[in-house]
Amino acid sequence: MNTFPVTPSSGTLSPLPLSAVSLAGGFWGERQELNRSAIIPHAVSWVTRLDWLGNLEKAADGGKYEHRGREFADSEIYKLIEAMSWEHARSGDTELDEVLDAFIDKLAAAQDPDGYLHTLFGRPWQQPRYSDFKWGHELYCFGHLIQAAVANHRATGSTRLLGVARKLADHVCTMFGPDGLDKVCGHAEIEVGLVELYRVTDDRRYLDQASVFIERRGTGTLPLFEFGKAYWQDDIPVRAATVLRGHAVRALYLAAGAVDVAVETGDTELLEALKLQWQNTVARRTYITGGMGSHHMDEAYGEDFVLPPDRSYCETCAGVASMMFSWRLLLATGDAKYADLMERTLYNIVATSPSADGKSFFYANTLHQRTTAGEAPLNEDGVCIRGGSSGRESWFEVSCCPPNVARTLASLGAYVATTDATGVQIHQYATSHIRAELEAGVLALEVETDYPASGRIKITVTDAPPVPAAVSIRVPAWAQGATLDSGLGPRPVEPGTATAAQTFQPGQQIILELPMEPRFSWPDNRIDAVRGCVAVERGPEVLALESIDLPAGWDLDDARIDTGAGLTERDGAATATLRQLQRTPTGRNWPFTPTAKDAAADGSPHAEVSLVPYHSWAERGSSTMRIWIPALTPATELT
Amino acid sequence: MNTFPVTPSSGTLSPLPLSAVSLAGGFWGERQELNRSAIIPHAVSWVTRLDWLGNLEKAADGGKYEHRGREFADSEIYKLIEAMSWEHARSGDTELDEVLDAFIDKLAAAQDPDGYLHTLFGRPWQQPRYSDFKWGHELYCFGHLIQAAVANHRATGSTRLLGVARKLADHVCTMFGPDGLDKVCGHAEIEVGLVELYRVTDDRRYLDQASVFIERRGTGTLPLFEFGKAYWQDDIPVRAATVLRGHAVRALYLAAGAVDVAVETGDTELLEALKLQWQNTVARRTYITGGMGSHHMDEAYGEDFVLPPDRSYCETCAGVASMMFSWRLLLATGDAKYADLMERTLYNIVATSPSADGKSFFYANTLHQRTTAGEAPLNEDGVCIRGGSSGRESWFEVSCCPPNVARTLASLGAYVATTDATGVQIHQYATSHIRAELEAGVLALEVETDYPASGRIKITVTDAPPVPAAVSIRVPAWAQGATLDSGLGPRPVEPGTATAAQTFQPGQQIILELPMEPRFSWPDNRIDAVRGCVAVERGPEVLALESIDLPAGWDLDDARIDTGAGLTERDGAATATLRQLQRTPTGRNWPFTPTAKDAAADGSPHAEVSLVPYHSWAERGSSTMRIWIPALTPATELT
Repeated sequence: MNTFPVTPSSGTLSPLPLSAVSLAGGFWGERQELNRSAIIPHAVSWVTRLDWLGNLEKAADGGKYEHRGREFADSEIYKLIEAMSWEHARSGDTELDEVLDAFIDKLAAAQDPDGYLHTLFGRPWQQPRYSDFKWGHELYCFGHLIQAAVANHRATGSTRLLGVARKLADHVCTMFGPDGLDKVCGHAEIEVGLVELYRVTDDRRYLDQASVFIERRGTGTLPLFEFGKAYWQDDIPVRAATVLRGHAVRALYLAAGAVDVAVETGDTELLEALKLQWQNTVARRTYITGGMGSHHMDEAYGEDFVLPPDRSYCETCAGVASMMFSWRLLLATGDAKYADLMERTLYNIVATSPSADGKSFFYANTLHQRTTAGEAPLNEDGVCIRGGSSGRESWFEVSCCPPNVARTLASLGAYVATTDATGVQIHQYATSHIRAELEAGVLALEVETDYPASGRIKITVTDAPPVPAAVSIRVPAWAQGATLDSGLGPRPVEPGTATAAQTFQPGQQIILELPMEPRFSWPDNRIDAVRGCVAVERGPEVLALESIDLPAGWDLDDARIDTGAGLTERDGAATATLRQLQRTPTGRNWPFTPTAKDAAADGSPHAEVSLVPYHSWAERGSSTMRIWIPALTPATELT
Repeated sequence: MNTFPVTPSSGTLSPLPLSAVSLAGGFWGERQELNRSAIIPHAVSWVTRLDWLGNLEKAADGGKYEHRGREFADSEIYKLIEAMSWEHARSGDTELDEVLDAFIDKLAAAQDPDGYLHTLFGRPWQQPRYSDFKWGHELYCFGHLIQAAVANHRATGSTRLLGVARKLADHVCTMFGPDGLDKVCGHAEIEVGLVELYRVTDDRRYLDQASVFIERRGTGTLPLFEFGKAYWQDDIPVRAATVLRGHAVRALYLAAGAVDVAVETGDTELLEALKLQWQNTVARRTYITGGMGSHHMDEAYGEDFVLPPDRSYCETCAGVASMMFSWRLLLATGDAKYADLMERTLYNIVATSPSADGKSFFYANTLHQRTTAGEAPLNEDGVCIRGGSSGRESWFEVSCCPPNVARTLASLGAYVATTDATGVQIHQYATSHIRAELEAGVLALEVETDYPASGRIKITVTDAPPVPAAVSIRVPAWAQGATLDSGLGPRPVEPGTATAAQTFQPGQQIILELPMEPRFSWPDNRIDAVRGCVAVERGPEVLALESIDLPAGWDLDDARIDTGAGLTERDGAATATLRQLQRTPTGRNWPFTPTAKDAAADGSPHAEVSLVPYHSWAERGSSTMRIWIPALTPATELT
């Protein structure tokens, strides 16, 4: 089966389908199981309980009904269909199959005769179709439906949902073609859907329509409003922009769709623009966690170097969307830096959102939690509203994040490795079976690792063509001192891509060793918000200091890290030496003073304190937390 | 005339009316003139042009109409009536009098027979009255109407508008009394209005109703929504709170009204709670400018020590509201710290908002402008929307700030000095005439100063009772080394209050000398966002570094201040020694690195650079700006 999320018709690397890469336990394999057993059923129960699924049923019935949930409630159903479709391909879980079929039945029945499908618009008692490009999310929902249909077709072979999607896409092409309505949706998303539909059907109209949407954005077809045109990327044409702006999920979905269009149309100029946008965004507007979005107000990118840890937004969906953008650029170019960012985002955003039991989720992923989580703001259904909470929550009024995590985890195998004419490229380390059909024959690999617990990745060749082939493996940018042993003993390899190329024999082993000692990371001194602070990372994991690990009586505000004392590992956990700032009570009620020294001094208490992987924080009860820890001796900027 | 904004029936200090304190030129006298000649006419032209005034006309006509502007558009008219009323008392400008009368005519004609007055609700084709406590702003608008009516009555003696306000207040007491609707407005404001109406009419029902609203808030009568109950202070009863929370203007208006209630009812417990809230808010949630509000999203206070300069909100109206709160506590207690904060807020928020020509305004007052102001987001009327812009704008869709500045400047004389049984207390330094009627006779003072250009404040007694009297003058907390000379030569005085007490003779002089050298101010090291940075202040003014003052080729991001080189003054401007960080182009696209030293080194360029008062920034074309400047050698926290 061609079970890929993305299948470009050209590019440096070709994806491998889910059927060719299966994860077998380990960090990600366990999370895939959690997704199957807990996350997807949890999400299904919520869309059912809140009657978002009911919108589709009632729309099919044809009677008058009160729409439940927000404008984009349909899209959560579609993302779950996508997740269950990939899950079908991956695990063949029959319980999920039943739910999947029921969802598709309802959806198919709700489609209007002309192909349109949205439960909030167009019926006599509702707002007219296409009367609100700003907030209506109609084309956005269509995009998710099309992605779900492509996934379902690829995963099951069924053409039923694909037929619904084609009819819908045909309607869109008629309505919004070059001679149609000169509009784009307030939320990009349909573009990735249309290109993938083109890839699965070979119908060029869908690609052309995606291209129209990409070119139309940035020409001012959306109305003016409070957050400015950049909010929906309508300020600058995609090919003229140099950095991502505005609402982070919108910007990243758009960029992913634009890469798809650029690749399929051979538009080098557009592709180069997107590579530049990626580079500038990563260099200036991305958190150390891979998180994107510095503003709560508009869920948006801040200006360059505006990366406040305590007001970071870092929406989980922006992490998913960032992976979508990076993956497409990785396939197009083969550059390991895209896989590096994906790894960072996977371990520190995608893995952070769900709780260990798969039943609650971070919507926003703060880098600094100052107070223990208070009561979450709830809507009148008793559901948490968007990123208002500082804790993981069961569900949200805007509940894009849990289904987005679900579809990502279900399809994760497809992001582990790629192939090209001569070999296989391993981008993410996971215990897995990989099988690629090269021109000269099958190259099959078994990967074993307990990464990120250790840095040893053992690859065993289980099948190989009788001619030279290449096994390439990414070496992360942080991995100074890595070694690769392809049978002749370990040799040093530089960050980027390490390759073993030869005629392989079944049973032959390739071993990558990555340095997993915890390490300090200092911020560029243009990032004002974390000046004088340092973070600790270990392998792909950003570590966090949680108040629960501090000695009794210490306040997180008063902890300083002694970078001179280095970092150690104890029972697999990184520990740092902290000093406790001694604060003299002053009775002052003004926090700005003529001298800076309000803290002393000799003999301040110190302690060895464990740091935890950021993705595991807030799992041990109420806690405050910070990733960026003020350093005892700030780095001197001018020496 | 009793032309005071606030007249508590008890308290340590008594206000002096506008008729007893007139400003004569100088920093604030000039701004009062600007208010009369430019700011008020500008605001009048906008409410007319946008037809917000027309809402009242059309409501009076009785026909169907389309309401223009937001839910609170009426309140801008009321704030302007208040401004023009104070202006009448201050300057007797007859042109403004005509506008004032016309505004009052329209308003009076629009009142419903039962006293209700709001142009957006209650007519057959409109939403019903009191159907939206969340966003309707009905009681909020009433509060501004009542404040305007009290001002108008005190300024002109007319009872016409006061009659409208009483009828409206009677309606409110009937609807929302202890046995009425158990509701409060989403936006506090009516409380200050009702107490002042009680003070002017002696009708106890108005005080009781204000008390009901104060006690009712915090009991959960408002609906749940995204920003949480704290947004409208409905999370905790006023008397149980320990710090201000949520939307800053809402919180401060509420606190001001609560002080009024506490003072009039002798509720010591409530007053103590408000003093504690003030203290904790100032110690932990207030910017060096006096600005309040750390979140753009909800225009709200952040958590303790969350004071990001580049995402500061510091709404101008929060500055005005902070003055209202502080002024009431100053009258109640006589503690100079309240006047200190008012001075800080006056010079750095109230004076910052309007441009030098009085025709554009900051809505939000950022402490760090990273990019030159882009295009402001406009609504479909072509009007800038709220705080979206990074520059001063002519008007806003939510245009509370310009009229709030107008009413504050017009009534500023009333905040300069107070009296008690034995003398006069000078709280703000301004060239002015002050006349107080003490029990033993008139004490009249002439104050001359070019403060804050210099720190010399000369007070000449022009009339005095034949018995000992006291002239007290605030000494700001920053003024270490101030001297007071009341005829026997200068003597050192400590921050707080300095008093000259004796039997004064006309012609006698008292001279306060304040140290006006520019000075460094370091932040409490719990304020993460400005760690390693220092601000420069001079007298009451916070200074700012504007990119326009940097040597050619320097970037604001790369300027470091050499605090060891001290500060100097040149032609009245403070100058600092800056070094230019040398940034080696690295080609890196990831801003987090294993070592902190990405900047070198010997012989980095340095320059003497002028700093400007923050209130005057952005007056010389497009510029970037910062108040908190990274220090070359960050202060050592543990020595």
